Amino acid sequence: MTVSILSARDVDFLLFDWLRTQELLERPAFASHSRETFASVLELAETLAREKYAPHHRANDLQEPRFDGTSVTLIPEVGTAVRAFADAGFLMAGLPEEDGGGGLPLSIGSACMAWFHAANTATAAYSLLSMAAGNLIRTHGTDEQRRLFAEPLAEGRFTGTMALSEPDAGSNLADLQTRAIPQDDGTYRLFGRKIWISGGDHELSENIVHLVLARTPDAAPGTRGISLFIVPKYLVAQNGSLGERNDVVLAGINHKMGSRGTVNTAPVLGDGAHTPGGAPGAVGHLVGSVGQGLPIMFSMMNEARLGVGIAGTAVGYAGYLESLAYARARLQGRRAGQSPADPQVPITEHPDVRRMLLAQKSYVEGALALMFYCSRLIDDAHSLDGEAAAEAAALTGLLTPIAKSWPAQWCLEANSLAIQVLGGAGYTRDHSVEQHYRDNRLNAIHEGTHGIQGLDLLGRKVLLDGGRALGMLVTRITATAERAQAVAGPESVVSVGQRYAADLLAMTSRLVEVSGSVGGVTASDPEGGARVMAEATAYLEAMGHLVIAWLWVEQWLVAREGDDALHAGKRAAAEYFMTRELPKVAHLLDLVAAHDGLTTGLDPDVL
Amino acid sequence: MTVSILSARDVDFLLFDWLRTQELLERPAFASHSRETFASVLELAETLAREKYAPHHRANDLQEPRFDGTSVTLIPEVGTAVRAFADAGFLMAGLPEEDGGGGLPLSIGSACMAWFHAANTATAAYSLLSMAAGNLIRTHGTDEQRRLFAEPLAEGRFTGTMALSEPDAGSNLADLQTRAIPQDDGTYRLFGRKIWISGGDHELSENIVHLVLARTPDAAPGTRGISLFIVPKYLVAQNGSLGERNDVVLAGINHKMGSRGTVNTAPVLGDGAHTPGGAPGAVGHLVGSVGQGLPIMFSMMNEARLGVGIAGTAVGYAGYLESLAYARARLQGRRAGQSPADPQVPITEHPDVRRMLLAQKSYVEGALALMFYCSRLIDDAHSLDGEAAAEAAALTGLLTPIAKSWPAQWCLEANSLAIQVLGGAGYTRDHSVEQHYRDNRLNAIHEGTHGIQGLDLLGRKVLLDGGRALGMLVTRITATAERAQAVAGPESVVSVGQRYAADLLAMTSRLVEVSGSVGGVTASDPEGGARVMAEATAYLEAMGHLVIAWLWVEQWLVAREGDDALHAGKRAAAEYFMTRELPKVAHLLDLVAAHDGLTTGLDPDVL
Repeated sequence: MTVSILSARDVDFLLFDWLRTQELLERPAFASHSRETFASVLELAETLAREKYAPHHRANDLQEPRFDGTSVTLIPEVGTAVRAFADAGFLMAGLPEEDGGGGLPLSIGSACMAWFHAANTATAAYSLLSMAAGNLIRTHGTDEQRRLFAEPLAEGRFTGTMALSEPDAGSNLADLQTRAIPQDDGTYRLFGRKIWISGGDHELSENIVHLVLARTPDAAPGTRGISLFIVPKYLVAQNGSLGERNDVVLAGINHKMGSRGTVNTAPVLGDGAHTPGGAPGAVGHLVGSVGQGLPIMFSMMNEARLGVGIAGTAVGYAGYLESLAYARARLQGRRAGQSPADPQVPITEHPDVRRMLLAQKSYVEGALALMFYCSRLIDDAHSLDGEAAAEAAALTGLLTPIAKSWPAQWCLEANSLAIQVLGGAGYTRDHSVEQHYRDNRLNAIHEGTHGIQGLDLLGRKVLLDGGRALGMLVTRITATAERAQAVAGPESVVSVGQRYAADLLAMTSRLVEVSGSVGGVTASDPEGGARVMAEATAYLEAMGHLVIAWLWVEQWLVAREGDDALHAGKRAAAEYFMTRELPKVAHLLDLVAAHDGLTTGLDPDVL
Repeated sequence: MTVSILSARDVDFLLFDWLRTQELLERPAFASHSRETFASVLELAETLAREKYAPHHRANDLQEPRFDGTSVTLIPEVGTAVRAFADAGFLMAGLPEEDGGGGLPLSIGSACMAWFHAANTATAAYSLLSMAAGNLIRTHGTDEQRRLFAEPLAEGRFTGTMALSEPDAGSNLADLQTRAIPQDDGTYRLFGRKIWISGGDHELSENIVHLVLARTPDAAPGTRGISLFIVPKYLVAQNGSLGERNDVVLAGINHKMGSRGTVNTAPVLGDGAHTPGGAPGAVGHLVGSVGQGLPIMFSMMNEARLGVGIAGTAVGYAGYLESLAYARARLQGRRAGQSPADPQVPITEHPDVRRMLLAQKSYVEGALALMFYCSRLIDDAHSLDGEAAAEAAALTGLLTPIAKSWPAQWCLEANSLAIQVLGGAGYTRDHSVEQHYRDNRLNAIHEGTHGIQGLDLLGRKVLLDGGRALGMLVTRITATAERAQAVAGPESVVSVGQRYAADLLAMTSRLVEVSGSVGGVTASDPEGGARVMAEATAYLEAMGHLVIAWLWVEQWLVAREGDDALHAGKRAAAEYFMTRELPKVAHLLDLVAAHDGLTTGLDPDVL
C-alpha cells in the first residue's frame, strides 16, 4: 500500500486558491519567479521527500544515532538525504537573490519543508538547523563570518546547531553559565556545558557551526549578560580551509522517545579534549555586540518556531493520510440494519471512525493553513512597504507562539486518533502511526515549551504590546466574518455562512473583552497580574483555537460551492471545527477572565 | 532519587476515609477479615510491587519478548515477579473462601492491582489474565474444568489468555471464523487464526489455558453462533498431569509501542504443527453451552474492563508522582520580582508547572476514586441482598465503560503532562515518564476500543436500559450535591460546597435532559437514532467527566476542613476539576443533543 504523506492537492488549494501566492509574483522581490517555478519547486520537494526521506523513516527510529565516545554515527540514508536536499538547492532557495539565493517566497519554502517533515521529520531537522544558523550569521554577522560560515552552510558543506540550553538553564536562559574569555586576537575562548543540542555532532558535513550563547567576564547577570558566538567544530582559516579540531566534544548523546534520527547531544566546551593553538578552550567568534546574544538569537526564533509548527503539522498530516488509507481498505463490521451474511464494509462506514478521520483532517489542514498564513505574513513583511509590512511583521509576532504550539498539541492529538483508527495494528511498529505519535511529542518541548509560548503570547505579544497586534488580527477576523455573513448563493450556503460569521464574531468579541479586562488588571494590580499570567496557557489555547476556526471559515469561503471532493471535504472539516472545536474556546476564556489564582495561591507541598 | 509510584496515603484515604471499606467487615461475606488484614495485604502488595515489579519496568521495554519460531523468551524478572505474586497468594486473594480463596473484597484487590500496575503494568498483565481466565472457568465451567484448569490457574502453575480477536474480526466479533469440530469423545478440534493475544506463549508456567471463541458447524451467523472453548497449550489428563503438546502454535508476535513486556501473539490453531492423539486440530473443551460463547466471555468483561481502568489509572499515577518529585528537586528560574542574583527556585514555584501537576493530580486521583467506587459496587453486589445488590450490579454495568475509557484518556493526558513537566528530560529514555506514556496508550484500544465503550454506554447501558441505571446514578449524584449544599462550617467552606452542589446539579440535570431527549429520538426515528449513536463517544466523555466531578465532590466532602497536606491537596485538586474540567461537559452534551448528523451524512470519499 503506497501511503500519501501530504496532499499536493491541499497544498495547491491553500497556496493558490486561498492565499493566492501567485500574486506575490507581481511584487519586485519575487518578480523573477513564475507560477511554473513555484510548481516545479513543490514537485521537486515532493519527489525528494518521497524518494530520499520517507524510505528511512523507520530506520531512523530503529537504528538511532550511536556515539562511541569520539564520534557519532548516523545511518547513511540521512547523509544521502541531507546532501540531496542541498544539491537540489533547497538550502539556498529562500535566500535573497543578491546573496546568490533563489529568492523564493517563504510561502513556497514552507510548503517544501512540510513535504520533508511529513516524510521524515528527524532527517529534515538537520537542514532546518543549517538554514537557521546560516540566516542568523547572514543577518547579524560580519562579512567575513558570512563568507567563512554562512556560505558553506548554504552550500551544505557545513551544518549548524543552536546551542542555548545548559544542564541548569533550559527554559531559564538567564542562568546560563558558559564563559567566553576574550583573547588578544579578537577571538574568545569558551568554557562550559550545553545540553539538548540537536545535530551537535555527526559526520554529515565537513564542519559543524555551533551558535553558542555564553557569558563574557563581568557581564551583567541575567539575560543582558549573554553574548552569541560562532564555535566551529574545526577552526576555519581566512581562506576557508579547515584547520585544527576545536575544543568542543560531546559528553554524550540523549536517547529520545521519538525523532530519534536527529542526534541530540550534550557538548562540552573547553575541557581540553583538544587544544587549538596549543591551549584548551573552544575558539569562538562573537556575533554582533557583547550582551546582544539573546536578542540576536531571538530575532531568528520566529522562523525557527514556525519550522517547529510546520514539523508538527506535517507529522500530523502523514498520520492522518496513513489512517485514512487504512480505514478505506480495512473491512470490519456492517452498517446498522445489515445482516451478518452481508459482506463486511470499510471502516470508513462507521460514524466514530469518520469522526476520528474528520477530527484529524480539521486539525492538520487547519494547522497547515496557519503555517502558510504565517509564511505569507513573513513574505509580506519582506516584500511590502511601510504600514503593510509593519502590520505583517506585527501579526507574525502575534501568531508565532500559536504557530509553534497549536500543531504540537492538536496534530499530536491527530496522531493519537490515527493510532486509534488502526486499533491494535496502530499500536504496533508495523505501521508508522505510532512513530509519528512519538516523533511529534517533541514539538511541544523544544524551541520554547508550550507554557513558554503562552507567556510570550499573553505577556509580550498582547499585554506589553497594548493589544495593537491583537487589534490587527481582530480586524482581519472580522473582515472574514463579514464576508461569510454576506455570501450569496443557495439558502443552504447562505445559512452556513451566517452561522459561521455569528459564531466567529461572538468568540472574537469575547477574546477582545477578556484581553481588555486582564490588560486592565495587569496594569493596576501586580498580584492580579500574576494570576492573569498564570492563565497564559489557557489564553494561548483559546486564541489558537479561535485562529484556526477563522482560517477554517477562510477555507470554507473558497470551497463553499465547489461540487468536487476537495471542496466538499473542506466544508465537512470546517463544519467539524466550527461545531466541535470552536465552542471549547468559551471555557478557556472564562478561565482567563476569572484568573482565580488557583495555581498562584497553591502551596506546592500539598501536591 | 527514590520515586513513589502510588500514594499509600491516598489509597487509605479513598478506601477507608471516603468509601469506609472497613464497613464491609460487618457483612457475612467478609466477616473473616479485619482492618489489619486489609492493611497487611495492601502493604504486601506495595512491597512486592516495589521490589519485584518496579525494578524491571525499563528492562521490559528494552528487552522485549523474543520469538525464535518455536518459543517465546521473556526476561527472567517477569517470571520471578509473576511467581512472587502467586506465592504471596494474590491470585487467590479474591476467590471465595469456600473455593479455598482469601475472600478478600475487590475493593482491596483493586488497590493491590493498582500497586502492581503502577510499578510495571506489562508484567502485571500476566497475573490479571490468569485471574480472569480462572474466574471465567470457575463461574461457567464444569467441576472437572474447575479442577483441571481453574485450580492450577489460581495456584499460578498455569497462566491464562483470552483469545477473541482474529485478523478479520477485531471490534466485530460477529465475523470470527475459527471453527470448532465436535469429536466423539466430547471434545472439539479447533482450526483458525487468532491475533492480539496477550500472554499467548511464554515459559512462565507449566501450561497456558487459552479461552478461545470459535464457531461450531452449522452455527448461526453472527455472534449467536459463537461458543467458548478451553484450549490448553498441553493436554491435561484426568489426574491433572500434563500430556501431549496441543496443536496451537504462534504465527508470530507483535511489536508494540509500549507495554512491551506483555508478549502479544498471533496464535494458529489446528494447522498440524502438533498432532495430539495422532491428528491435527487443537483440542478444545466447551465451556457452558454451544452458542453461549459471547455472553459467557462478556460476563467476565466487566472485571476485565475494570482491570484496564486500574492499569491506566496506575500508570498515570506513577507518572504524576515521578514528575512531582522531579519538579520539587529541579531548580530553574525565579519568582516574579526576584533578581538574577537570587538562587533559582524549584519549578513547583511556577504557576504553569503547578497547573500541570494539579491537572495530573485531579486526573489520577479522580480515576483511582472511580476504580475503587466501581470495585466497591461489585463488592456490594456480592455481599448485599435484594434491591441493594441489584442496584450495585446495575450501577456497575453503567459505570464500567467509563471505568474502562476515562483513565485510558485522561491518565494518558496525565502522562503527557508528566513529560512536559520534565521538559527535554521527560522526552528521553532516562526517565520513566516517556515509557508510561507509551505503555498507557494501549488502554484505549484493548478490551474494547474507546468508541466501542461509547456505544456500550449510550446504546446498551442507557437507552436499552430505559434510563433505569442512569436514574440510580443521578440519585446518588444528587445526594452528594445535597450534602455539599448543606455543609456547615466557616463561610469559605460553605460557599465552596454550595458552588460545587450547584455546578454538579446543573450539569446532571443537563445530562438527564439530553439523555431523555435522545431516548425519545431513538425510540421513534431510526435515522435520528443513528445520528444520536454517532455522538456516543461525546456522550461517554461527557458522562465520564461528570462522574469524576461527582467523585471529586465526594472527596471534597471528606477533606473539606482538614488542615493537613492530604486534605488541602484534595481540595485543590477538587477545585481544579470543578473549575477547569467539569465545564467541558456542557459542550459535549450540546453535541449529543444536536446529533447533527455530520458523520452519518458524510461521504467518506471527500476525506
